[in-house]
Amino acid sequence: MSSHAGQSAVTVLGLGPMGRSLAGAFLDAGLRVTVWNRTPGRDRELVARGAAGARSAAEAVAASTVTVVCVVNNDAVDAILRPEAVTAALKGRTVVNLTADTPDRARDAAAWAAGHGVRYLDGAIMTPAATIGTPAAVFLHSGPEALYREHLPVLEALGGTHTHLGEETGRAAAYDIALLDIFWTAMAGCAHALAVARAEGITGQELAPFAKGIGDILPAIFEEMAREADGGDFPGDDNPITSAVSSMAHIVHTSEAHGIDAGVMRAAEGMARRAVGRGHGADGFTRIAELLGRR
Amino acid sequence: MSSHAGQSAVTVLGLGPMGRSLAGAFLDAGLRVTVWNRTPGRDRELVARGAAGARSAAEAVAASTVTVVCVVNNDAVDAILRPEAVTAALKGRTVVNLTADTPDRARDAAAWAAGHGVRYLDGAIMTPAATIGTPAAVFLHSGPEALYREHLPVLEALGGTHTHLGEETGRAAAYDIALLDIFWTAMAGCAHALAVARAEGITGQELAPFAKGIGDILPAIFEEMAREADGGDFPGDDNPITSAVSSMAHIVHTSEAHGIDAGVMRAAEGMARRAVGRGHGADGFTRIAELLGRR
Repeated sequence: MSSHAGQSAVTVLGLGPMGRSLAGAFLDAGLRVTVWNRTPGRDRELVARGAAGARSAAEAVAASTVTVVCVVNNDAVDAILRPEAVTAALKGRTVVNLTADTPDRARDAAAWAAGHGVRYLDGAIMTPAATIGTPAAVFLHSGPEALYREHLPVLEALGGTHTHLGEETGRAAAYDIALLDIFWTAMAGCAHALAVARAEGITGQELAPFAKGIGDILPAIFEEMAREADGGDFPGDDNPITSAVSSMAHIVHTSEAHGIDAGVMRAAEGMARRAVGRGHGADGFTRIAELLGRR
Repeated sequence: MSSHAGQSAVTVLGLGPMGRSLAGAFLDAGLRVTVWNRTPGRDRELVARGAAGARSAAEAVAASTVTVVCVVNNDAVDAILRPEAVTAALKGRTVVNLTADTPDRARDAAAWAAGHGVRYLDGAIMTPAATIGTPAAVFLHSGPEALYREHLPVLEALGGTHTHLGEETGRAAAYDIALLDIFWTAMAGCAHALAVARAEGITGQELAPFAKGIGDILPAIFEEMAREADGGDFPGDDNPITSAVSSMAHIVHTSEAHGIDAGVMRAAEGMARRAVGRGHGADGFTRIAELLGRR
């Protein structure tokens, strides 16, 4: 850790699993850490490790030049930061909001901060709480680049990689949303597949090596789809949307024949069938991204 | 290639991209190959490479002891194999049906075959046509194990790995359905994410390294979910279903704020919210597989 970070003070608001990991990493890096949580009693272990437990959010933010906030969503951020005493205490200080929410809420928070003399950076944490303080952690940031550079030594105490995505405040949240879209859709597919497999007498253990095989080919396919989306060229030579529609219909049929809800795949099939209906059946699947985005 | 395979004769019905690859791999392995396609003219390149082009399906199946069929779906298989002349020519011979369809259609085909003295194996090809004849090809098989062993030397001419999943005919198709469920759901998520990213001013190229990062963590997560599904234990410590619901709501909101259909994520969010409504909000996401499968 740099000596700059070692001499710094940081406040952490929100002591859920992620907030506790953030505060713990700051402590491990030798920073002076003040913590606060809306529900009391969550700070005990951190205080035992050397953190200062503040009695109020206003007291907490007054203790450091930079406050990292990580709570359930931006409604909670607003409820914590916008009371007059807290806003007054934040004046001239920096908030790094690592709470997950939408790009428009990030922009709204930045506008509020600007209107109250609060310096504001938005960010997203792409990896689980257990990765914080390790090289595996992935942080995305957006907001004024100079402000980001100023606080980077403190942020780097959290370990992992930090990427500044641009000055537009909503950018970190927008990446977060797009990446979580991939993640949670894939998770829904995996949960559903396990249910269908079980109904067919196939255990998770039996399916796992093949499911891993599917997972192994996805990163390269995602990269190819990203290239196609930028290029506006959607070759369907080997695998046209019509083939996807046929597979999807088989999945819906097999699920529902077992009484298993197939709403996710029905929606995906609808997307693919609408692409076919618009005359794009011979195109590759990435055409669907282009059609979804048409205004 | 074994000398056994080298002396064998095989018929390939269906000359789409996959059928042509199968026939080409058999030719490369030195087998005597007869080909036929419902729409004429697709066999020219294969005939130039040494295949015999049959004038009818009946003539084609009569030329070999084993016929591999790979067409659009089992409706097409039935239309090709069930006319009287073809069924009569197949008597005592083996059909290896590598057409993608549902487990119930595979079982129906096996029942028809048994009733007409046709020996029947079902199978699924898990990799694209370009992998056929290479080590990357993945084939799943089901049906009588002795019959599978008898024809394995011919099947191995197709390259890749061959796995016999059991004597129950529908098993290969059931694996196929579950694995395609994961694959096509993930593909739908990726196409959607690219559309949302673009609406937020993020190119595919900008998103790609992070999307690849998400893809990289999926195989291990799929394996963990498979273990949890078998064990019936769904720890949500770090990442409860309530967190997923919150993320999913943000994705739906951001998509729809850009006029982008969010039907797939709405369906996934519904699945997750129903799990919360049934009292499982603190569980991990794999609980959803268990709930989907409840009768």
